[in-house]
Amino acid sequence: MRFHTRKWVKPEDLNPNGTLFGGKLLAWIDEELALYTIIQLENPKVVTKHMSEINFRSSAKQGDIIEIGIDVVKFGNSSLTLKCEVRNMMTRETIISIDTTTMVNLGADGKPKAHGKTQIEYVKNRLS
Amino acid sequence: MRFHTRKWVKPEDLNPNGTLFGGKLLAWIDEELALYTIIQLENPKVVTKHMSEINFRSSAKQGDIIEIGIDVVKFGNSSLTLKCEVRNMMTRETIISIDTTTMVNLGADGKPKAHGKTQIEYVKNRLS
Amino acid sequence: MRFHTRKWVKPEDLNPNGTLFGGKLLAWIDEELALYTIIQLENPKVVTKHMSEINFRSSAKQGDIIEIGIDVVKFGNSSLTLKCEVRNMMTRETIISIDTTTMVNLGADGKPKAHGKTQIEYVKNRLS
Amino acid sequence: MRFHTRKWVKPEDLNPNGTLFGGKLLAWIDEELALYTIIQLENPKVVTKHMSEINFRSSAKQGDIIEIGIDVVKFGNSSLTLKCEVRNMMTRETIISIDTTTMVNLGADGKPKAHGKTQIEYVKNRLS
Amino acid sequence: MRFHTRKWVKPEDLNPNGTLFGGKLLAWIDEELALYTIIQLENPKVVTKHMSEINFRSSAKQGDIIEIGIDVVKFGNSSLTLKCEVRNMMTRETIISIDTTTMVNLGADGKPKAHGKTQIEYVKNRLS
Amino acid sequence: MRFHTRKWVKPEDLNPNGTLFGGKLLAWIDEELALYTIIQLENPKVVTKHMSEINFRSSAKQGDIIEIGIDVVKFGNSSLTLKCEVRNMMTRETIISIDTTTMVNLGADGKPKAHGKTQIEYVKNRLS
Repeated sequence: MRFHTRKWVKPEDLNPNGTLFGGKLLAWIDEELALYTIIQLENPKVVTKHMSEINFRSSAKQGDIIEIGIDVVKFGNSSLTLKCEVRNMMTRETIISIDTTTMVNLGADGKPKAHGKTQIEYVKNRLS
Repeated sequence: MRFHTRKWVKPEDLNPNGTLFGGKLLAWIDEELALYTIIQLENPKVVTKHMSEINFRSSAKQGDIIEIGIDVVKFGNSSLTLKCEVRNMMTRETIISIDTTTMVNLGADGKPKAHGKTQIEYVKNRLS
Repeated sequence: MRFHTRKWVKPEDLNPNGTLFGGKLLAWIDEELALYTIIQLENPKVVTKHMSEINFRSSAKQGDIIEIGIDVVKFGNSSLTLKCEVRNMMTRETIISIDTTTMVNLGADGKPKAHGKTQIEYVKNRLS
Repeated sequence: MRFHTRKWVKPEDLNPNGTLFGGKLLAWIDEELALYTIIQLENPKVVTKHMSEINFRSSAKQGDIIEIGIDVVKFGNSSLTLKCEVRNMMTRETIISIDTTTMVNLGADGKPKAHGKTQIEYVKNRLS
Repeated sequence: MRFHTRKWVKPEDLNPNGTLFGGKLLAWIDEELALYTIIQLENPKVVTKHMSEINFRSSAKQGDIIEIGIDVVKFGNSSLTLKCEVRNMMTRETIISIDTTTMVNLGADGKPKAHGKTQIEYVKNRLS
Repeated sequence: MRFHTRKWVKPEDLNPNGTLFGGKLLAWIDEELALYTIIQLENPKVVTKHMSEINFRSSAKQGDIIEIGIDVVKFGNSSLTLKCEVRNMMTRETIISIDTTTMVNLGADGKPKAHGKTQIEYVKNRLS
């Protein structure tokens, strides 16, 4: 699993009890899933269709840095199934993990469309 | 199921494809789950512990109004299990539904604590 | 008066003195007035035209839950006059009340347009 | 009346009809009233207590620049009464005007406290 | 140098160490540079092209009020070079200063275009 | 140079001309510089002290994905000098590059403090 995006937990990201607001975390994850899919499928028009159950295993506090990891579970015909893990870089704990999220590739008409991809492609020169 | 909170979908809530950003929706749901739990358990210190699978059944566009409904599935000893449905008031479609989300009641030490509640209580004068 | 939308006061909603920022509260109220009007007039194109004087009677602090209530004062020809009250669900105090706010129904040309409504309509199946 | 703060109307400031969201405008005004009061009374602890009626006279669209003007109506014992006008620098129209807003000076105990000021003071070197 | 826009440092503007987040400050400056340029060049289509080095000389804390000053360094053919200083109105300290920022005037085709301006113009009735 | 954090350009990130707001981009960069420094110096208390000149070489539009790269220029005694580049993953163009930004390590008293680091350390298991 590759961990790319990192976030610095700022006051605006907290719930009233002073820990990372779960809703903010879910929003960060949904953005990362979308952009990962867009890069792999080379199509900007994708949607989140389904997420498997979500366990909130630990939290994060102001000043912590978290990182979001994504990996591919399966390339479908018009879909891409991903798994996701968020880790706290300060405590080394897993904050949340989601076993499968199904992203769907859409055509210009807004309907599912075959994407023709079957394996992860790395963008050249990016992590060399 | 009672639907309380409503949101007006504004430009700031959209994803780049011009529909309601799923991450924003998940953040709205998480806030509603938390505040519903706080009111029922009469304790401000609660956390989201688990969400069952999430189906994104339809979307919403700029200008749509959505409403978030919550119902109680089960009162546990230190937990409260809720179900949630988000509806589009314009199209009458269900946007998202989550069968069970487990909210946990915490004590001052941050650990699960019995809440002593066994049934929904309605705040007097509010919806009479 | 019916109270629908609820908000959980988070750090991002506070003024520098640590209480609910009045400007945030006014923004929440304006959104609620707009969406209530849209639902009643069944027209997404409405604007806030006038608010009567506003008394800030009490405040709210981080972690409080507030609810926003709206009621109809009068159906005009192209307008709808509403009253609004915001309550703190923790302290049971009224935070703000506005006796009349005039919302105007607009046509496609952006000018006031008769809406043909004369009484409150409840959306079926919503609060039954 | 002196106009200081200016805002550039960005997509995040719009309502779903594509014009400046009234709630955002009210939030900008409330912030300006507070900081103007803090500077005049030389006390960071002030609150908005009352606003007279508000007329929304025109709007603004994406890309417009607005400016917020404040003037003193009256120095009270523990209060400061201000008037406010917001103008669209593109169209030269008044967007909103509020005849009086009462700001209250608070002591360390959170109660109204005499501020000892009787006239506007200009911060040296600033607008000379 | 004229100081117009003021900001009240709120919890949402802080970094996790509890001081004004530098990124927020840079965003405020960039907005002010853009709108100052739009007003002077009477063209809404301008872009920031270059900033000279930036020194973060002091910071600000929650509740502080800052003001942003802009002055013209030079009118180019299709550009406008500005200098900028941000001051803390509480402590009287300079927070940041940028010697030159080059703003470019664009035509409808998105390419640099002569703006025909050679000196600062004051909008009538505003600061007289 | 390693590129970690990615952003999906959403409507809330745009300036009124419909391209990525430069101020938002600077805020994203400042956050990335801070968290990179915190991870390398193993100290949450760091500040941005200086940025060399900034060239805005190209822009990004709604739906584009950008990635932020950081590299170490020099380990000072109490400082860390970084360089930064932001790329548009859609167009492969460089959006912005900053040759040197000086980050300072602070002690509990808020003053510069030696950090004892002399080379980049990779967090184990992260990018293997």
